Amino acid sequence: MFMRVDKLQAELPVPKRKDPNAAAALQELLGGKYGEMSTLGNYMFQSFNFRSKSKLRPFYSLVAAITAEELGHVELVSNGVAMLANGPDAENDDTDGGDISGAPFEMMKDIRSFASFASAGGGALPVNSNSMSWNADMVTTTGNIVVDLLHNFHLECGARLHKLRVYETLSDPTGREVCGYLLVRGSVHAHAYALALKKITGVELEKFLPTPNIPLDKIPECQKYLQEGSHRRLYRFSPNDYAEMAAIWGNGEQALPTDPPGELEVVDGMPEGGKIHDLTGVASAFAPDYAPEEMFEIATKLYQKSR
Amino acid sequence: MFMRVDKLQAELPVPKRKDPNAAAALQELLGGKYGEMSTLGNYMFQSFNFRSKSKLRPFYSLVAAITAEELGHVELVSNGVAMLANGPDAENDDTDGGDISGAPFEMMKDIRSFASFASAGGGALPVNSNSMSWNADMVTTTGNIVVDLLHNFHLECGARLHKLRVYETLSDPTGREVCGYLLVRGSVHAHAYALALKKITGVELEKFLPTPNIPLDKIPECQKYLQEGSHRRLYRFSPNDYAEMAAIWGNGEQALPTDPPGELEVVDGMPEGGKIHDLTGVASAFAPDYAPEEMFEIATKLYQKSR
Amino acid sequence: MFMRVDKLQAELPVPKRKDPNAAAALQELLGGKYGEMSTLGNYMFQSFNFRSKSKLRPFYSLVAAITAEELGHVELVSNGVAMLANGPDAENDDTDGGDISGAPFEMMKDIRSFASFASAGGGALPVNSNSMSWNADMVTTTGNIVVDLLHNFHLECGARLHKLRVYETLSDPTGREVCGYLLVRGSVHAHAYALALKKITGVELEKFLPTPNIPLDKIPECQKYLQEGSHRRLYRFSPNDYAEMAAIWGNGEQALPTDPPGELEVVDGMPEGGKIHDLTGVASAFAPDYAPEEMFEIATKLYQKSR
Amino acid sequence: MFMRVDKLQAELPVPKRKDPNAAAALQELLGGKYGEMSTLGNYMFQSFNFRSKSKLRPFYSLVAAITAEELGHVELVSNGVAMLANGPDAENDDTDGGDISGAPFEMMKDIRSFASFASAGGGALPVNSNSMSWNADMVTTTGNIVVDLLHNFHLECGARLHKLRVYETLSDPTGREVCGYLLVRGSVHAHAYALALKKITGVELEKFLPTPNIPLDKIPECQKYLQEGSHRRLYRFSPNDYAEMAAIWGNGEQALPTDPPGELEVVDGMPEGGKIHDLTGVASAFAPDYAPEEMFEIATKLYQKSR
Amino acid sequence: MFMRVDKLQAELPVPKRKDPNAAAALQELLGGKYGEMSTLGNYMFQSFNFRSKSKLRPFYSLVAAITAEELGHVELVSNGVAMLANGPDAENDDTDGGDISGAPFEMMKDIRSFASFASAGGGALPVNSNSMSWNADMVTTTGNIVVDLLHNFHLECGARLHKLRVYETLSDPTGREVCGYLLVRGSVHAHAYALALKKITGVELEKFLPTPNIPLDKIPECQKYLQEGSHRRLYRFSPNDYAEMAAIWGNGEQALPTDPPGELEVVDGMPEGGKIHDLTGVASAFAPDYAPEEMFEIATKLYQKSR
Amino acid sequence: MFMRVDKLQAELPVPKRKDPNAAAALQELLGGKYGEMSTLGNYMFQSFNFRSKSKLRPFYSLVAAITAEELGHVELVSNGVAMLANGPDAENDDTDGGDISGAPFEMMKDIRSFASFASAGGGALPVNSNSMSWNADMVTTTGNIVVDLLHNFHLECGARLHKLRVYETLSDPTGREVCGYLLVRGSVHAHAYALALKKITGVELEKFLPTPNIPLDKIPECQKYLQEGSHRRLYRFSPNDYAEMAAIWGNGEQALPTDPPGELEVVDGMPEGGKIHDLTGVASAFAPDYAPEEMFEIATKLYQKSR
Repeated sequence: MFMRVDKLQAELPVPKRKDPNAAAALQELLGGKYGEMSTLGNYMFQSFNFRSKSKLRPFYSLVAAITAEELGHVELVSNGVAMLANGPDAENDDTDGGDISGAPFEMMKDIRSFASFASAGGGALPVNSNSMSWNADMVTTTGNIVVDLLHNFHLECGARLHKLRVYETLSDPTGREVCGYLLVRGSVHAHAYALALKKITGVELEKFLPTPNIPLDKIPECQKYLQEGSHRRLYRFSPNDYAEMAAIWGNGEQALPTDPPGELEVVDGMPEGGKIHDLTGVASAFAPDYAPEEMFEIATKLYQKSR
Repeated sequence: MFMRVDKLQAELPVPKRKDPNAAAALQELLGGKYGEMSTLGNYMFQSFNFRSKSKLRPFYSLVAAITAEELGHVELVSNGVAMLANGPDAENDDTDGGDISGAPFEMMKDIRSFASFASAGGGALPVNSNSMSWNADMVTTTGNIVVDLLHNFHLECGARLHKLRVYETLSDPTGREVCGYLLVRGSVHAHAYALALKKITGVELEKFLPTPNIPLDKIPECQKYLQEGSHRRLYRFSPNDYAEMAAIWGNGEQALPTDPPGELEVVDGMPEGGKIHDLTGVASAFAPDYAPEEMFEIATKLYQKSR
Repeated sequence: MFMRVDKLQAELPVPKRKDPNAAAALQELLGGKYGEMSTLGNYMFQSFNFRSKSKLRPFYSLVAAITAEELGHVELVSNGVAMLANGPDAENDDTDGGDISGAPFEMMKDIRSFASFASAGGGALPVNSNSMSWNADMVTTTGNIVVDLLHNFHLECGARLHKLRVYETLSDPTGREVCGYLLVRGSVHAHAYALALKKITGVELEKFLPTPNIPLDKIPECQKYLQEGSHRRLYRFSPNDYAEMAAIWGNGEQALPTDPPGELEVVDGMPEGGKIHDLTGVASAFAPDYAPEEMFEIATKLYQKSR
Repeated sequence: MFMRVDKLQAELPVPKRKDPNAAAALQELLGGKYGEMSTLGNYMFQSFNFRSKSKLRPFYSLVAAITAEELGHVELVSNGVAMLANGPDAENDDTDGGDISGAPFEMMKDIRSFASFASAGGGALPVNSNSMSWNADMVTTTGNIVVDLLHNFHLECGARLHKLRVYETLSDPTGREVCGYLLVRGSVHAHAYALALKKITGVELEKFLPTPNIPLDKIPECQKYLQEGSHRRLYRFSPNDYAEMAAIWGNGEQALPTDPPGELEVVDGMPEGGKIHDLTGVASAFAPDYAPEEMFEIATKLYQKSR
Repeated sequence: MFMRVDKLQAELPVPKRKDPNAAAALQELLGGKYGEMSTLGNYMFQSFNFRSKSKLRPFYSLVAAITAEELGHVELVSNGVAMLANGPDAENDDTDGGDISGAPFEMMKDIRSFASFASAGGGALPVNSNSMSWNADMVTTTGNIVVDLLHNFHLECGARLHKLRVYETLSDPTGREVCGYLLVRGSVHAHAYALALKKITGVELEKFLPTPNIPLDKIPECQKYLQEGSHRRLYRFSPNDYAEMAAIWGNGEQALPTDPPGELEVVDGMPEGGKIHDLTGVASAFAPDYAPEEMFEIATKLYQKSR
Repeated sequence: MFMRVDKLQAELPVPKRKDPNAAAALQELLGGKYGEMSTLGNYMFQSFNFRSKSKLRPFYSLVAAITAEELGHVELVSNGVAMLANGPDAENDDTDGGDISGAPFEMMKDIRSFASFASAGGGALPVNSNSMSWNADMVTTTGNIVVDLLHNFHLECGARLHKLRVYETLSDPTGREVCGYLLVRGSVHAHAYALALKKITGVELEKFLPTPNIPLDKIPECQKYLQEGSHRRLYRFSPNDYAEMAAIWGNGEQALPTDPPGELEVVDGMPEGGKIHDLTGVASAFAPDYAPEEMFEIATKLYQKSR
């Protein structure tokens, strides 16, 4: 089972301008082959399909707990996409809708992902930066633990490369913050899978890291998280379960040499996180609707009545 | 953010025989257009993309909390699929692997979804009963609240039809229990979206229910859940959030006339749930591996050391 | 614009037994790359996109009129699919639905296209015999008239091969009648595109026919249509338009040497056709619904009132 | 069976400039999930697969007749796409082709849908605004009449939203006219499915309309059609059939309150419609071919000979 | 550039019976995510896209040469598929076609991949065992050499697992020989990528092998190739190029401990290989055609004339 | 079996500027329905699946040898794509990577195929100009020789149209050279399939050519190859095999009337070809890696040691 908390893993700064192409670029980290839907989908189905869970508890717990974190990554990137497509709050502050006969969204005609406007009103979708759907070919869940973990290790390295490249295309702070946070957490996951494989095979796979060959200290947006020690922490993301992963992430294992030093640790619960930005409605785009005042009023009354 | 609890929403009985085609049939409820990946994907992205969250809090909370429940539905069906493909526990109790040169899985050659054996060792995948991938075309997140909620209402009615038909093809208790549980919970969600739309439009959409036109009392596997009152409950699936949905699911609203009577209520936390079945390894199918004893030993030592 | 007439191009015999796998085989002729959705989709979009329509009127008219015929082919195959999946009328004559708790459709668990039962209740879908979707990659509409016509000629030859092979797998009269009728009409279309290309290039492309190298007189189900002269006729499928195609299909052109002799002719209107079989409802499969009596009554009253 | 008439349902004004990105935007209304290929595909297969046709004749007739209208919608949007990609007539009036070595179409290199030029010479294709194929996942034909009609009602509401958003991005009169016409007709279909469901369930679903919450009088391009009373009419699109739908669309039912008042009526035949624009050839793009004069001459001679 | 030699990398025994489902199972090794189309596609595009070829010559040469070998693997599996679908030679020895009206292929109606008969006459296609297409999502070519090589290493381990599982389902010698040969060669490629990564990172990745954890000596069909030393050899598959890969596969590196001992070596040219089986025509399935005698005669005359 | 030679079929000039959209346009000729992956895939699988190879040797040899040439076409277009995306050599000559925090690739945010940068670092992929994957629907291998050859003839004519249109959009010499070379070779293949069909059917299909109706002398980039006589040559692309195709391409057959005159001839081996351009690394894009100097050093040492 899963529970939900109405916060984001990291607080995102408001975008400085509306930039649908930047939103589309960020989609690569959501629905691309090496995006968060993929890390989520792989670990989620691997944890469901895990054989011999009781005999391999530390490995099962690792995959199961990271699944929960990945749900929050999907949420974080999705919020970033919707924020970049929506733009600064003031710009959209209409609750009327007004006269729509003057082609008010003509600029959308030339964006890369027209369908994201027509279909989702700028919201996030499980597609990549070219609007191709995420799909089952992006899920590897063989049931063989070495193949699955090796796949996961490769996936996190590939995901790091993709995050770096997307980061290099974005000048807006919203998207850059998404990348900075995910680069730190993705590095943790790559490290974790390396250690899991080392326990089974004896091969010192963590010496591959960082892949690509760039340390996190080159990315300004990562520094805040490194200083907090985020690179040394795995959260259980559970009230009571998954503590067994400390057998892999812990036991004296240390941070990577290119990161701030310290021992790896499993942390109870979840990170403090930040608030979810309240996306302003755009009545002229029918989100939440054209002329939504009556609906707002209904919602207010309902809410007061129910308390 | 999301948290995870190492339990299933409903406890599943162990299958009486290994039945890969039944597992494949159940996949329709996982990755089909009207399956749990779709309900999850729709509500998850709708909640991420929700405009004017603060002004429409009861509606946002409803979609956000049901998202968390749907994660557990995906988990439940996935467990059912893997259990049906694995079969009764005793049959697979091999930790050796033995001589694989005698075509030990020849019977798999003729199953409908050969790839589910070759690729996933019988585990669940985000595909439908014909092995087609779930994809973004199955996600509607327009940002328009009436269109989204209306889509969701139609989705739950369609999903109920699919669950009924899949149920009618399964004789094994594992799959039937999955269907029985989901029929009750899916009916709750259809009811909830009907009420949400009624609040906005005044249309008594709940009078459509049940669709299809069969009451739950015709399904033996539903009775246990009806007796518990599950059909009157929405869980917050959250430590602290989403209480606002009581403005829609509550306020004196009643159970459907064809179900046991009573008032609708929002329940804190999550259902008690049941244990996750420990899928037996099948060494001859390399899950978790051929000759996994050494791996089991490593895991045991690691675990002891970390405690 | 298009109009519709509530008849089929050919009357189909009722199936002797319910055979979902035969229905699925027939789907190859509906949604396969060389199926009727493809011939329809190609000619329809080619006619929409046709450049210099007025200067190339005979060619435009040919493609436009055959489009209308292909709509009827899609309808014919779809009816065949639904009839084979439904089986003989008597078997399904239930308007109650009864007790569905005994896995009444367990036999469906092992059919090739489980989703066609779960999703469509046995109805036709735009997919091939392996349940893959028809898609835009199956449409060629280049705007170049020689490339488009050459594509169409190749498409009809390929379609004839596919029809022959599907025919060879079916023992039920419903599916065989579909194949027999389509083999005659498909041969007409191949012939027509050959003549169109001959007019432009001078190449005697009709000498390729029949491809594959088997005359229609080898197929018992074709004889009725050959005797009617169907192989010499193109219908305008229009009240007033498309007569110009007589410049290609006519002007003294003759039937193929392996078919009964005679001059090619453009026929006003459409063939006489046959009745659409009234598919019996299957209440236990929720089609049109479980316990539909009240719905039938409503329909009857409404209809009487409106007359 | 289907017939074809060589006219469009509405006459389209010639575009003022060549705008491949506007053509691509309009594709969302052709091949998007909520586009005309979807409305066509859904109603067409539902009508083929309809169970108990004779007992549910008014409902069958409604779906069957609207299918025919949707064919004309597919045709209308396709013409709009091809016209926008082709541009004003004068610009392309070449029948020579000339020297193509100077990269005459370099501007195409940067359009959103390059393949629409390379593959279709600017013609319409069954794809959405991002060039993704229309596919079978966009077809719901469950055989359950309530689920199918409810799906259709949701589909028309979603389609209305998509038409509105596409309309807001277009400044050219061709595309805007397509949207204006379809908004009126789509509203009729939403209304019709609402009434059909009301007859079965008693739920006043028409009170949902208009969804989104904007009346048609806000769209200048709709006014002409409203004044004609198009919003109150369903056409039989058939010489003799489908009159039974008057049991649903008629019987004293009235126009929606936000539209000009009046009684709903079923109209024999089809609307008067307008002429199909004669797309100018572009010899340099090989459509209908490079140096097509000889081909034009052949066509002229053939045509004269055949009359 | 590429050259072709009219031989197979390994000679395949003739199948003992016609088994379309076994052919379909083998397709997993052709068009599945971990099949030969994937290994080919990955290495081919990686070699085309390789940056700094001259500075990284040994690594480039390795990927480039293995690409050529993978082409032969695609050919080998394809031959196996077509042979299993065609069956023993005698059964099909018809050059007449005969009377096809008696549903001669009715048994095909129930096979898993009906389309492989209808569309390809039993031939191989770039699809997996469930008929899903191979596609670009299965190609990773990031341009980052560590990510690409790591992907390749994981791919070969995953491919080994899939080969083992397919092998376990096949009792026919043709398919088993395909698996036996590919298991040896796939192990070589996994070993080669491990060594390439070791050279760059220092991590002893070859200690992961064999993955899955089963030595090749458990597979009877592998023994012949192990005895030849195939597991120690990489072929240049080129008249003059790619010798530089000896810097990785050579330099004193040894066979894996679970395989027969010996030094790794780069071999000039290609393996001796075996003959391509001459697939018997099946006139009744129109392959190469119905009544092909005249065609055979033409071919014979043409050939004699040209010599 | 296949061998590889480290050269391109034609030497490509270095691009004058970095142009990702031109690279994306060229992808249409790689992964589009009428692109080189399609010609390769069709002929490769047709040659694998060929029935009665020995009795139809000239036809088999033709398809088999052209397959090998198509591999080189895939390579040629891929090199063109990667070169256009990489741009002139000097621009990228960084082996450091430097400070990447200033959004160094912001310009990529607005290109048509963002994923080609994020995923492939600008390298070629088996996708079309809109990033859609090449797939099995683009492969026709029916086993019927007339249908297959007719398909191939149509494919080459369609491919010629696509090459012409892509050529018309490119001003850079790299892409234009790719098109010029492929137009000549594609015309050879169309001619060859026409002759093959003429031998079987007697129809003078070569009179269709050129299709589209533009002679090669209109394309400056083709002249060099016409002067060499490339339009009269088929290469065996094999050390010893496929000479039998001279029965089709030879025997006194002549060049097309619109091309320089002369007899058709089969040529031993392969064309001389040109060198593969050494793609400069882009350390800031992590290709082959960030800060790759150590890797270059390792490669150099390894190579020296192995010689």
